[in-house]
Amino acid sequence: MSAWFRDGVACESIPIDDRGLQYGDGVFETIAIRDGSPRLWRYHVDRLVEGCKCLRITPPAETVLRGWLEHALRSSAADVADCVAKIIVTAGVSQRGYGRLSPSEANTLVGLFPTMPLAADAYKDGVETILCRTRLACGSATAGFKTLNRIEQVLARSECLAAGAFEGLTLDADERLICGTMSNVFIVSNKVLITPSVERSGVAGVMRRHVIDCLEAAGISVQIGDITEQEFNAADEVFLCNSQFGVLPVRSCGAHQFGVGELTRRAMALLAGNGIGECAV
Amino acid sequence: MSAWFRDGVACESIPIDDRGLQYGDGVFETIAIRDGSPRLWRYHVDRLVEGCKCLRITPPAETVLRGWLEHALRSSAADVADCVAKIIVTAGVSQRGYGRLSPSEANTLVGLFPTMPLAADAYKDGVETILCRTRLACGSATAGFKTLNRIEQVLARSECLAAGAFEGLTLDADERLICGTMSNVFIVSNKVLITPSVERSGVAGVMRRHVIDCLEAAGISVQIGDITEQEFNAADEVFLCNSQFGVLPVRSCGAHQFGVGELTRRAMALLAGNGIGECAV
Repeated sequence: MSAWFRDGVACESIPIDDRGLQYGDGVFETIAIRDGSPRLWRYHVDRLVEGCKCLRITPPAETVLRGWLEHALRSSAADVADCVAKIIVTAGVSQRGYGRLSPSEANTLVGLFPTMPLAADAYKDGVETILCRTRLACGSATAGFKTLNRIEQVLARSECLAAGAFEGLTLDADERLICGTMSNVFIVSNKVLITPSVERSGVAGVMRRHVIDCLEAAGISVQIGDITEQEFNAADEVFLCNSQFGVLPVRSCGAHQFGVGELTRRAMALLAGNGIGECAV
Repeated sequence: MSAWFRDGVACESIPIDDRGLQYGDGVFETIAIRDGSPRLWRYHVDRLVEGCKCLRITPPAETVLRGWLEHALRSSAADVADCVAKIIVTAGVSQRGYGRLSPSEANTLVGLFPTMPLAADAYKDGVETILCRTRLACGSATAGFKTLNRIEQVLARSECLAAGAFEGLTLDADERLICGTMSNVFIVSNKVLITPSVERSGVAGVMRRHVIDCLEAAGISVQIGDITEQEFNAADEVFLCNSQFGVLPVRSCGAHQFGVGELTRRAMALLAGNGIGECAV
Protein backbone atom coordinates (compact mmCIF):
# COMPACT_ATOMS: atom_id res chain seq x y z
CA MET A 1 0.00 0.00 0.00
CA SER A 2 1.25 3.43 -0.94
CA ALA A 3 -1.02 6.02 -2.56
CA TRP A 4 -0.71 9.75 -3.17
CA PHE A 5 -3.34 12.42 -3.61
CA ARG A 6 -2.74 15.98 -4.77
CA ASP A 7 -5.19 18.61 -3.59
CA GLY A 8 -7.63 15.76 -2.96
CA VAL A 9 -7.22 13.93 -6.30
CA ALA A 10 -5.35 10.64 -6.74
CA CYS A 11 -2.02 11.45 -8.30
CA GLU A 12 1.37 9.86 -8.89
CA SER A 13 3.49 12.79 -10.03
CA ILE A 14 4.13 16.49 -9.59
CA PRO A 15 5.30 19.11 -12.09
CA ILE A 16 9.10 19.30 -12.31
CA ASP A 17 8.80 23.07 -11.79
CA ASP A 18 7.31 22.54 -8.33
CA ARG A 19 9.41 24.42 -5.80
CA GLY A 20 9.27 21.44 -3.47
CA LEU A 21 11.57 19.59 -5.86
CA GLN A 22 13.58 22.56 -7.11
CA TYR A 23 14.49 24.01 -3.70
CA GLY A 24 12.92 21.85 -1.00
CA ASP A 25 10.56 24.81 -0.60
CA GLY A 26 7.87 23.24 1.54
CA VAL A 27 7.04 21.44 4.78
CA PHE A 28 5.61 18.07 5.70
CA GLU A 29 4.01 16.09 8.50
CA THR A 30 4.07 12.37 9.11
CA ILE A 31 0.89 11.51 10.98
CA ALA A 32 -0.10 8.28 12.70
CA ILE A 33 -3.58 7.18 11.67
CA ARG A 34 -5.11 5.12 14.49
CA ASP A 35 -8.62 3.67 14.34
CA GLY A 36 -9.14 5.69 11.19
CA SER A 37 -8.29 9.07 12.74
CA PRO A 38 -5.17 11.23 12.66
CA ARG A 39 -3.45 11.16 16.05
CA LEU A 40 -2.20 14.46 17.53
CA TRP A 41 -3.89 16.28 14.65
CA ARG A 42 -3.89 19.61 16.51
CA TYR A 43 -0.11 19.50 17.06
CA HIS A 44 0.56 18.46 13.46
CA VAL A 45 -1.59 21.28 12.07
CA ASP A 46 0.00 23.81 14.43
CA ARG A 47 3.50 22.88 13.28
CA LEU A 48 2.50 22.75 9.61
CA VAL A 49 0.96 26.22 9.83
CA GLU A 50 3.95 27.65 11.72
CA GLY A 51 6.36 26.09 9.21
CA CYS A 52 4.38 27.55 6.31
CA LYS A 53 4.46 30.95 8.03
CA CYS A 54 8.25 30.72 8.33
CA LEU A 55 8.48 29.92 4.61
CA ARG A 56 5.71 32.39 3.70
CA ILE A 57 3.55 29.70 2.12
CA THR A 58 -0.23 29.95 2.45
CA PRO A 59 -1.33 26.46 3.48
CA PRO A 60 -4.83 25.14 2.77
CA ALA A 61 -7.39 25.84 5.48
CA GLU A 62 -7.38 23.22 8.22
CA THR A 63 -10.86 21.97 7.27
CA VAL A 64 -9.78 21.57 3.63
CA LEU A 65 -6.64 19.72 4.69
CA ARG A 66 -8.61 17.44 6.97
CA GLY A 67 -11.12 16.84 4.17
CA TRP A 68 -8.34 15.82 1.77
CA LEU A 69 -6.87 13.47 4.36
CA GLU A 70 -10.24 11.86 5.06
CA HIS A 71 -10.94 11.57 1.34
CA ALA A 72 -7.61 9.78 0.91
CA LEU A 73 -8.43 7.41 3.76
CA ARG A 74 -11.90 6.68 2.34
CA SER A 75 -10.52 6.18 -1.19
CA SER A 76 -7.87 3.68 -0.23
CA ALA A 77 -8.36 0.11 -1.38
CA ALA A 78 -6.18 -1.13 1.47
CA ASP A 79 -7.11 -1.26 5.15
CA VAL A 80 -6.01 2.12 6.45
CA ALA A 81 -7.52 2.08 9.95
CA ASP A 82 -3.92 2.08 11.17
CA CYS A 83 -1.45 3.59 8.77
CA VAL A 84 1.00 6.43 8.20
CA ALA A 85 -0.25 9.58 6.47
CA LYS A 86 2.33 11.97 5.05
CA ILE A 87 1.15 15.47 4.20
CA ILE A 88 3.43 17.66 2.09
CA VAL A 89 2.71 21.34 1.43
CA THR A 90 5.04 22.89 -1.16
CA ALA A 91 5.28 26.48 -2.35
CA GLY A 92 3.85 25.28 -5.67
CA VAL A 93 5.05 26.08 -9.16
CA SER A 94 6.92 29.27 -9.98
CA GLN A 95 9.41 30.63 -12.45
CA ARG A 96 13.06 29.65 -12.03
CA GLY A 97 14.79 31.53 -9.23
CA TYR A 98 15.02 31.19 -5.46
CA GLY A 99 12.89 34.20 -4.57
CA ARG A 100 9.14 34.45 -4.21
CA LEU A 101 7.61 37.89 -3.92
CA SER A 102 3.94 37.04 -3.79
CA PRO A 103 2.58 33.98 -1.99
CA SER A 104 2.41 31.25 -4.63
CA GLU A 105 -0.42 28.73 -4.72
CA ALA A 106 0.55 25.90 -2.42
CA ASN A 107 0.59 22.34 -3.67
CA THR A 108 -0.71 19.85 -1.09
CA LEU A 109 0.07 16.14 -1.28
CA VAL A 110 -1.31 13.40 0.94
CA GLY A 111 0.31 9.96 0.91
CA LEU A 112 -0.73 6.81 2.77
CA PHE A 113 1.75 4.14 3.82
CA PRO A 114 1.62 0.97 5.90
CA THR A 115 2.53 1.21 9.58
CA MET A 116 5.48 -0.77 10.76
CA PRO A 117 4.54 -1.78 14.32
CA LEU A 118 7.43 -2.63 16.60
CA ALA A 119 7.82 -5.78 18.64
CA ALA A 120 6.74 -5.47 22.29
CA ASP A 121 10.38 -6.16 23.26
CA ALA A 122 11.37 -2.76 21.90
CA TYR A 123 9.03 -1.05 24.37
CA LYS A 124 10.07 -3.34 27.22
CA ASP A 125 13.83 -3.68 26.85
CA GLY A 126 14.67 -0.61 24.77
CA VAL A 127 16.30 -0.13 21.40
CA GLU A 128 19.88 0.14 20.19
CA THR A 129 21.13 3.46 18.81
CA ILE A 130 24.34 4.90 17.47
CA LEU A 131 25.82 8.37 17.58
CA CYS A 132 26.05 9.51 13.94
CA ARG A 133 29.15 11.10 12.45
CA THR A 134 26.92 13.47 10.46
CA ARG A 135 26.56 16.79 12.31
CA LEU A 136 23.55 19.10 12.05
CA ALA A 137 24.36 22.67 11.01
CA CYS A 138 23.79 25.29 13.75
CA GLY A 139 21.61 28.34 13.55
CA SER A 140 19.18 27.15 10.88
CA ALA A 141 16.58 29.73 9.87
CA THR A 142 14.02 26.91 9.85
CA ALA A 143 15.11 25.13 13.05
CA GLY A 144 12.25 23.25 14.68
CA PHE A 145 10.21 22.97 11.48
CA LYS A 146 9.84 19.92 9.32
CA THR A 147 10.84 21.36 5.97
CA LEU A 148 11.60 19.41 2.81
CA ASN A 149 15.32 20.19 3.35
CA ARG A 150 16.24 16.89 4.95
CA ILE A 151 19.63 15.93 3.57
CA GLU A 152 21.21 15.91 7.03
CA GLN A 153 18.65 13.30 8.11
CA VAL A 154 19.23 11.30 4.93
CA LEU A 155 22.98 11.17 5.62
CA ALA A 156 22.57 10.38 9.32
CA ARG A 157 19.85 7.79 8.74
CA SER A 158 21.99 6.02 6.14
CA GLU A 159 24.74 5.68 8.76
CA CYS A 160 22.22 4.25 11.17
CA LEU A 161 20.92 1.69 8.65
CA ALA A 162 24.48 0.65 7.81
CA ALA A 163 25.14 0.06 11.51
CA GLY A 164 21.93 -1.94 11.92
CA ALA A 165 20.78 0.32 14.76
CA PHE A 166 17.18 1.28 15.42
CA GLU A 167 17.99 4.97 15.51
CA GLY A 168 20.92 7.33 14.96
CA LEU A 169 21.35 10.24 17.32
CA THR A 170 22.86 13.43 15.98
CA LEU A 171 24.97 16.19 17.47
CA ASP A 172 25.12 19.64 15.94
CA ALA A 173 28.31 21.20 14.57
CA ASP A 174 28.97 22.59 18.07
CA GLU A 175 28.82 19.05 19.50
CA ARG A 176 25.49 19.44 21.31
CA LEU A 177 23.05 16.52 21.25
CA ILE A 178 19.98 17.55 19.21
CA CYS A 179 17.75 14.65 18.20
CA GLY A 180 17.49 11.34 16.38
CA THR A 181 17.16 11.09 12.61
CA MET A 182 13.43 10.42 12.98
CA SER A 183 12.82 11.06 16.67
CA ASN A 184 13.42 13.41 19.57
CA VAL A 185 15.45 12.36 22.57
CA PHE A 186 15.06 12.79 26.34
CA ILE A 187 17.63 11.94 28.97
CA VAL A 188 17.32 11.45 32.72
CA SER A 189 20.28 12.75 34.65
CA ASN A 190 20.18 12.72 38.49
CA LYS A 191 16.40 12.31 38.33
CA VAL A 192 16.04 15.38 36.07
CA LEU A 193 14.42 15.00 32.65
CA ILE A 194 16.13 17.00 29.92
CA THR A 195 15.48 17.28 26.18
CA PRO A 196 17.64 19.30 23.78
CA SER A 197 16.57 22.69 22.54
CA VAL A 198 15.61 22.66 18.86
CA GLU A 199 16.02 26.39 18.40
CA ARG A 200 19.26 26.17 16.40
CA SER A 201 18.68 22.90 14.54
CA GLY A 202 16.56 19.78 14.65
CA VAL A 203 12.83 19.24 14.54
CA ALA A 204 10.31 20.10 17.26
CA GLY A 205 8.49 16.77 17.15
CA VAL A 206 4.77 16.61 17.83
CA MET A 207 5.31 13.62 20.15
CA ARG A 208 8.03 15.62 21.95
CA ARG A 209 5.40 18.27 22.61
CA HIS A 210 2.89 15.64 23.72
CA VAL A 211 5.45 14.02 26.05
CA ILE A 212 6.30 17.40 27.62
CA ASP A 213 2.62 18.30 27.98
CA CYS A 214 1.69 14.93 29.53
CA LEU A 215 4.65 14.96 31.93
CA GLU A 216 4.10 18.52 33.05
CA ALA A 217 0.36 17.89 33.53
CA ALA A 218 1.45 15.09 35.88
CA GLY A 219 3.74 17.45 37.78
CA ILE A 220 7.00 16.20 36.23
CA SER A 221 8.99 19.10 34.84
CA VAL A 222 11.12 18.79 31.72
CA GLN A 223 14.20 20.94 31.21
CA ILE A 224 14.93 22.12 27.68
CA GLY A 225 18.62 22.79 27.33
CA ASP A 226 22.00 21.87 25.95
CA ILE A 227 23.29 18.32 26.37
CA THR A 228 26.92 17.53 25.61
CA GLU A 229 28.10 14.11 24.42
CA GLN A 230 29.65 13.55 27.86
CA GLU A 231 26.40 14.39 29.65
CA PHE A 232 24.53 12.09 27.29
CA ASN A 233 26.93 9.20 27.89
CA ALA A 234 26.57 9.65 31.64
CA ALA A 235 22.74 9.68 31.51
CA ASP A 236 20.83 7.30 33.80
CA GLU A 237 18.01 6.82 31.30
CA VAL A 238 17.45 7.75 27.69
CA PHE A 239 14.26 7.56 25.66
CA LEU A 240 13.12 8.47 22.16
CA CYS A 241 9.78 9.65 20.90
CA ASN A 242 8.13 10.15 17.54
CA SER A 243 4.65 10.43 16.11
CA GLN A 244 4.51 6.80 15.00
CA PHE A 245 5.97 4.74 17.83
CA GLY A 246 5.24 7.03 20.78
CA VAL A 247 7.97 6.58 23.43
CA LEU A 248 10.73 3.95 23.34
CA PRO A 249 13.46 3.34 25.91
CA VAL A 250 17.05 3.38 24.63
CA ARG A 251 19.16 0.55 25.96
CA SER A 252 22.39 1.46 24.23
CA CYS A 253 24.18 4.01 22.10
CA GLY A 254 27.20 2.37 20.55
CA ALA A 255 29.19 0.92 23.46
CA HIS A 256 27.25 2.89 26.10
CA GLN A 257 24.54 0.99 27.97
CA PHE A 258 21.55 2.63 29.61
CA GLY A 259 19.02 1.26 32.05
CA VAL A 260 15.29 1.38 31.39
CA GLY A 261 14.38 3.35 34.47
CA GLU A 262 11.54 4.73 36.48
CA LEU A 263 11.04 8.03 34.67
CA THR A 264 10.98 6.38 31.26
CA ARG A 265 8.35 3.90 32.50
CA ARG A 266 6.39 6.77 34.03
CA ALA A 267 6.47 8.70 30.75
CA MET A 268 5.32 5.64 28.83
CA ALA A 269 2.47 4.99 31.26
CA LEU A 270 1.37 8.62 31.02
CA LEU A 271 1.47 8.48 27.22
CA ALA A 272 -0.43 5.18 27.18
CA GLY A 273 -3.13 6.93 29.18
CA ASN A 274 -3.14 9.86 26.77
CA GLY A 275 -3.90 8.28 23.43
CA ILE A 276 -0.59 6.57 22.65
CA GLY A 277 -1.62 2.93 23.01
CA GLU A 278 1.74 1.54 21.84
CA CYS A 279 3.31 2.69 25.11
CA ALA A 280 1.20 0.33 27.25
CA VAL A 281 3.62 -2.47 28.12
CA MET B 1 10.83 28.96 -23.34
CA SER B 2 11.12 26.42 -20.55
CA ALA B 3 11.43 22.71 -21.25
CA TRP B 4 12.38 19.73 -19.13
CA PHE B 5 13.85 16.38 -20.07
CA ARG B 6 14.19 13.36 -17.81
CA ASP B 7 16.97 10.92 -18.60
CA GLY B 8 16.98 12.39 -22.10
CA VAL B 9 13.20 12.25 -22.73
CA ALA B 10 10.92 15.32 -22.79
CA CYS B 11 9.03 15.33 -19.52
CA GLU B 12 6.94 17.65 -17.40
CA SER B 13 6.61 15.76 -14.14
CA ILE B 14 8.40 13.46 -11.72
CA PRO B 15 7.03 10.73 -9.45
CA ILE B 16 5.90 12.09 -6.07
CA ASP B 17 8.03 9.39 -4.44
CA ASP B 18 11.20 10.88 -5.91
CA ARG B 19 13.62 11.62 -3.08
CA GLY B 20 14.41 14.99 -4.64
CA LEU B 21 10.94 16.15 -3.64
CA GLN B 22 10.58 14.14 -0.45
CA TYR B 23 13.90 15.14 1.14
CA GLY B 24 15.74 17.47 -1.23
CA ASP B 25 17.97 14.43 -1.77
CA GLY B 26 19.89 15.56 -4.84
CA VAL B 27 22.14 18.18 -6.39
CA PHE B 28 21.90 20.58 -9.30
CA GLU B 29 23.92 22.79 -11.61
CA THR B 30 22.84 25.94 -13.41
CA ILE B 31 24.95 26.17 -16.54
CA ALA B 32 25.33 29.06 -18.96
CA ILE B 33 24.91 27.89 -22.57
CA ARG B 34 26.89 30.21 -24.84
CA ASP B 35 27.08 29.74 -28.61
CA GLY B 36 25.34 26.41 -28.12
CA SER B 37 27.91 25.00 -25.68
CA PRO B 38 27.90 24.65 -21.89
CA ARG B 39 30.35 27.13 -20.35
CA LEU B 40 32.69 25.92 -17.59
CA TRP B 41 31.43 22.38 -18.21
CA ARG B 42 34.46 20.81 -16.49
CA TYR B 43 33.86 22.76 -13.27
CA HIS B 44 30.13 22.03 -13.29
CA VAL B 45 30.70 18.30 -13.75
CA ASP B 46 33.39 18.26 -11.06
CA ARG B 47 31.05 19.85 -8.52
CA LEU B 48 28.10 17.69 -9.54
CA VAL B 49 30.18 14.53 -9.14
CA GLU B 50 31.61 15.66 -5.79
CA GLY B 51 28.12 16.60 -4.54
CA CYS B 52 26.78 13.19 -5.60
CA LYS B 53 29.68 11.55 -3.78
CA CYS B 54 28.83 13.47 -0.61
CA LEU B 55 25.21 12.31 -0.90
CA ARG B 56 26.20 8.81 -2.07
CA ILE B 57 24.27 9.12 -5.32
CA THR B 58 25.68 7.51 -8.46
CA PRO B 59 25.41 10.19 -11.16
CA PRO B 60 25.16 9.34 -14.84
CA ALA B 61 28.50 9.10 -16.65
CA GLU B 62 29.75 12.45 -17.90
CA THR B 63 29.32 11.44 -21.55
CA VAL B 64 25.72 10.37 -20.90
CA LEU B 65 25.00 13.64 -19.10
CA ARG B 66 26.54 15.66 -21.90
CA GLY B 67 24.54 13.65 -24.43
CA TRP B 68 21.28 14.39 -22.59
CA LEU B 69 22.13 18.09 -22.43
CA GLU B 70 22.96 18.22 -26.14
CA HIS B 71 19.80 16.28 -26.97
CA ALA B 72 17.76 18.83 -24.99
CA LEU B 73 19.46 21.70 -26.82
CA ARG B 74 18.86 20.06 -30.23
CA SER B 75 15.22 19.26 -29.38
CA SER B 76 14.28 22.75 -28.30
CA ALA B 77 11.91 24.67 -30.56
CA ALA B 78 13.27 27.96 -29.21
CA ASP B 79 16.65 29.49 -30.00
CA VAL B 80 18.91 28.06 -27.32
CA ALA B 81 22.32 29.19 -28.56
CA ASP B 82 22.42 31.34 -25.43
CA CYS B 83 20.30 30.03 -22.56
CA VAL B 84 20.35 28.65 -19.05
CA ALA B 85 20.52 24.88 -18.59
CA LYS B 86 19.62 23.46 -15.21
CA ILE B 87 20.69 19.90 -14.49
CA ILE B 88 19.18 18.14 -11.46
CA VAL B 89 20.36 14.73 -10.26
CA THR B 90 18.15 13.25 -7.53
CA ALA B 91 18.58 10.06 -5.55
CA GLY B 92 15.58 8.69 -7.46
CA VAL B 93 12.58 6.83 -6.10
CA SER B 94 12.73 4.82 -2.91
CA GLN B 95 10.52 3.61 -0.14
CA ARG B 96 9.47 6.10 2.54
CA GLY B 97 12.22 6.85 5.06
CA TYR B 98 15.28 9.06 5.17
CA GLY B 99 17.88 6.34 4.85
CA ARG B 100 19.31 4.73 1.75
CA LEU B 101 21.42 1.63 2.15
CA SER B 102 22.20 0.79 -1.45
CA PRO B 103 22.81 3.42 -4.12
CA SER B 104 19.41 4.09 -5.69
CA GLU B 105 19.02 4.73 -9.40
CA ALA B 106 19.55 8.44 -9.93
CA ASN B 107 16.95 10.53 -11.71
CA THR B 108 18.48 13.15 -14.02
CA LEU B 109 16.53 16.17 -15.20
CA VAL B 110 17.66 18.78 -17.72
CA GLY B 111 15.73 22.04 -18.05
CA LEU B 112 16.29 24.90 -20.48
CA PHE B 113 15.39 28.50 -19.65
CA PRO B 114 15.90 31.88 -21.30
CA THR B 115 18.95 33.94 -20.32
CA MET B 116 18.33 37.28 -18.72
CA PRO B 117 21.22 39.42 -19.97
CA LEU B 118 22.08 42.44 -17.83
CA ALA B 119 22.40 46.00 -19.06
CA ALA B 120 25.97 47.14 -19.76
CA ASP B 121 25.53 49.67 -16.92
CA ALA B 122 25.53 46.86 -14.38
CA TYR B 123 29.03 45.81 -15.50
CA LYS B 124 30.24 49.43 -15.70
CA ASP B 125 28.76 51.08 -12.61
CA GLY B 126 28.05 48.08 -10.41
CA VAL B 127 24.88 46.71 -8.82
CA GLU B 128 23.00 47.41 -5.61
CA THR B 129 22.88 44.76 -2.91
CA ILE B 130 21.47 44.35 0.57
CA LEU B 131 22.62 42.42 3.60
CA CYS B 132 19.91 39.83 4.29
CA ARG B 133 18.47 39.19 7.74
CA THR B 134 18.35 35.46 6.94
CA ARG B 135 21.44 33.74 8.33
CA LEU B 136 23.01 30.59 6.88
CA ALA B 137 23.41 27.72 9.34
CA CYS B 138 27.04 26.88 10.22
CA GLY B 139 28.73 23.55 9.87
CA SER B 140 26.58 22.07 7.12
CA ALA B 141 27.50 18.51 6.13
CA THR B 142 26.97 19.55 2.50
CA ALA B 143 28.68 22.97 2.63
CA GLY B 144 30.06 23.99 -0.74
CA PHE B 145 27.75 21.72 -2.72
CA LYS B 146 24.67 22.79 -4.62
CA THR B 147 22.12 20.44 -3.12
CA LEU B 148 18.36 20.65 -3.51
CA ASN B 149 18.16 21.91 0.10
CA ARG B 150 17.91 25.60 -0.72
CA ILE B 151 15.38 27.06 1.71
CA GLU B 152 17.95 29.49 3.13
CA GLN B 153 18.46 30.91 -0.35
CA VAL B 154 14.70 31.08 -0.93
CA LEU B 155 14.24 33.11 2.26
CA ALA B 156 17.21 35.39 1.60
CA ARG B 157 16.35 35.89 -2.06
CA SER B 158 12.77 36.82 -1.16
CA GLU B 159 14.16 39.57 1.11
CA CYS B 160 16.31 40.79 -1.73
CA LEU B 161 13.40 40.90 -4.20
CA ALA B 162 11.26 42.77 -1.67
CA ALA B 163 14.05 45.35 -1.30
CA GLY B 164 14.41 45.71 -5.07
CA ALA B 165 18.13 44.95 -4.86
CA PHE B 166 20.08 43.01 -7.48
CA GLU B 167 21.51 40.63 -4.92
CA GLY B 168 21.24 39.81 -1.22
CA LEU B 169 24.41 38.99 0.67
CA THR B 170 24.19 36.53 3.53
CA LEU B 171 26.09 36.10 6.78
CA ASP B 172 26.19 32.80 8.60
CA ALA B 173 24.81 32.29 12.10
CA ASP B 174 28.25 33.28 13.45
CA GLU B 175 28.02 36.61 11.57
CA ARG B 176 30.64 35.80 8.95
CA LEU B 177 30.01 36.94 5.37
CA ILE B 178 29.51 33.84 3.19
CA CYS B 179 27.99 34.58 -0.23
CA GLY B 180 25.08 36.04 -2.15
CA THR B 181 21.81 34.21 -2.65
CA MET B 182 22.86 33.31 -6.20
CA SER B 183 26.48 34.43 -6.31
CA ASN B 184 29.83 34.37 -4.57
CA VAL B 185 31.43 37.52 -3.26
CA PHE B 186 34.98 38.91 -3.30
CA ILE B 187 36.21 41.98 -1.44
CA VAL B 188 39.33 44.10 -1.88
CA SER B 189 40.75 45.36 1.38
CA ASN B 190 44.09 47.24 1.37
CA LYS B 191 44.78 45.87 -2.12
CA VAL B 192 44.24 42.27 -0.94
CA LEU B 193 41.54 40.16 -2.61
CA ILE B 194 39.56 37.99 -0.18
CA THR B 195 36.64 35.63 -0.69
CA PRO B 196 34.84 33.82 2.14
CA SER B 197 35.47 30.18 2.87
CA VAL B 198 32.53 27.96 1.95
CA GLU B 199 33.61 25.08 4.17
CA ARG B 200 30.93 25.62 6.82
CA SER B 201 28.08 26.90 4.63
CA GLY B 202 27.42 28.42 1.23
CA VAL B 203 28.10 27.19 -2.26
CA ALA B 204 31.50 26.84 -3.95
CA GLY B 205 30.48 28.52 -7.19
CA VAL B 206 32.00 27.40 -10.47
CA MET B 207 32.59 31.05 -11.45
CA ARG B 208 34.25 31.62 -8.06
CA ARG B 209 36.66 28.82 -8.99
CA HIS B 210 37.18 30.28 -12.45
CA VAL B 211 37.84 33.75 -11.00
CA ILE B 212 40.38 32.37 -8.54
CA ASP B 213 42.08 30.30 -11.27
CA CYS B 214 42.24 33.23 -13.72
CA LEU B 215 43.52 35.67 -11.09
CA GLU B 216 46.14 33.30 -9.76
CA ALA B 217 47.30 32.44 -13.29
CA ALA B 218 47.86 36.20 -13.70
CA GLY B 219 49.89 36.36 -10.50
CA ILE B 220 47.15 37.89 -8.34
CA SER B 221 46.64 35.86 -5.20
CA VAL B 222 43.24 35.42 -3.58
CA GLN B 223 42.88 34.84 0.14
CA ILE B 224 40.14 32.50 1.29
CA GLY B 225 39.12 33.39 4.81
CA ASP B 226 36.63 34.83 7.24
CA ILE B 227 35.14 38.27 6.59
CA THR B 228 33.17 40.02 9.32
CA GLU B 229 30.38 42.49 8.59
CA GLN B 230 32.70 45.30 9.74
CA GLU B 231 35.47 44.18 7.38
CA PHE B 232 32.97 43.94 4.56
CA ASN B 233 31.61 47.44 5.19
CA ALA B 234 35.15 48.83 5.20
CA ALA B 235 36.08 47.13 1.89
CA ASP B 236 37.55 49.25 -0.90
CA GLU B 237 35.94 47.18 -3.64
CA VAL B 238 33.36 44.40 -3.73
CA PHE B 239 32.38 42.17 -6.62
CA LEU B 240 30.06 39.26 -7.23
CA CYS B 241 30.35 36.31 -9.57
CA ASN B 242 28.11 33.56 -10.82
CA SER B 243 27.91 31.15 -13.72
CA GLN B 244 25.46 33.27 -15.68
CA PHE B 245 26.65 36.86 -15.39
CA GLY B 246 30.37 36.32 -14.81
CA VAL B 247 31.73 39.14 -12.61
CA LEU B 248 29.80 42.24 -11.55
CA PRO B 249 31.03 45.16 -9.43
CA VAL B 250 28.97 46.00 -6.33
CA ARG B 251 28.35 49.71 -5.90
CA SER B 252 26.37 49.52 -2.69
CA CYS B 253 25.14 47.28 0.09
CA GLY B 254 22.29 49.03 1.83
CA ALA B 255 23.66 52.43 2.90
CA HIS B 256 27.30 51.45 2.27
CA GLN B 257 28.83 52.67 -0.99
CA PHE B 258 31.76 51.00 -2.72
CA GLY B 259 33.98 52.18 -5.53
CA VAL B 260 34.45 50.16 -8.71
CA GLY B 261 38.20 49.85 -8.44
CA GLU B 262 41.26 48.60 -10.16
CA LEU B 263 41.25 44.99 -8.97
CA THR B 264 37.61 44.52 -9.94
CA ARG B 265 38.35 45.88 -13.42
CA ARG B 266 41.40 43.65 -13.65
CA ALA B 267 39.38 40.58 -12.68
CA MET B 268 36.72 41.43 -15.26
CA ALA B 269 39.32 41.94 -18.00
CA LEU B 270 40.94 38.61 -17.13
CA LEU B 271 37.56 36.85 -17.20
CA ALA B 272 36.63 38.51 -20.49
CA GLY B 273 39.83 37.05 -21.92
CA ASN B 274 39.00 33.63 -20.50
CA GLY B 275 35.64 32.83 -22.03
CA ILE B 276 33.35 35.12 -20.04
CA GLY B 277 32.40 37.61 -22.75
CA GLU B 278 29.89 39.50 -20.56
CA CYS B 279 32.78 40.95 -18.56
CA ALA B 280 34.20 42.90 -21.52
CA VAL B 281 33.15 46.48 -20.81
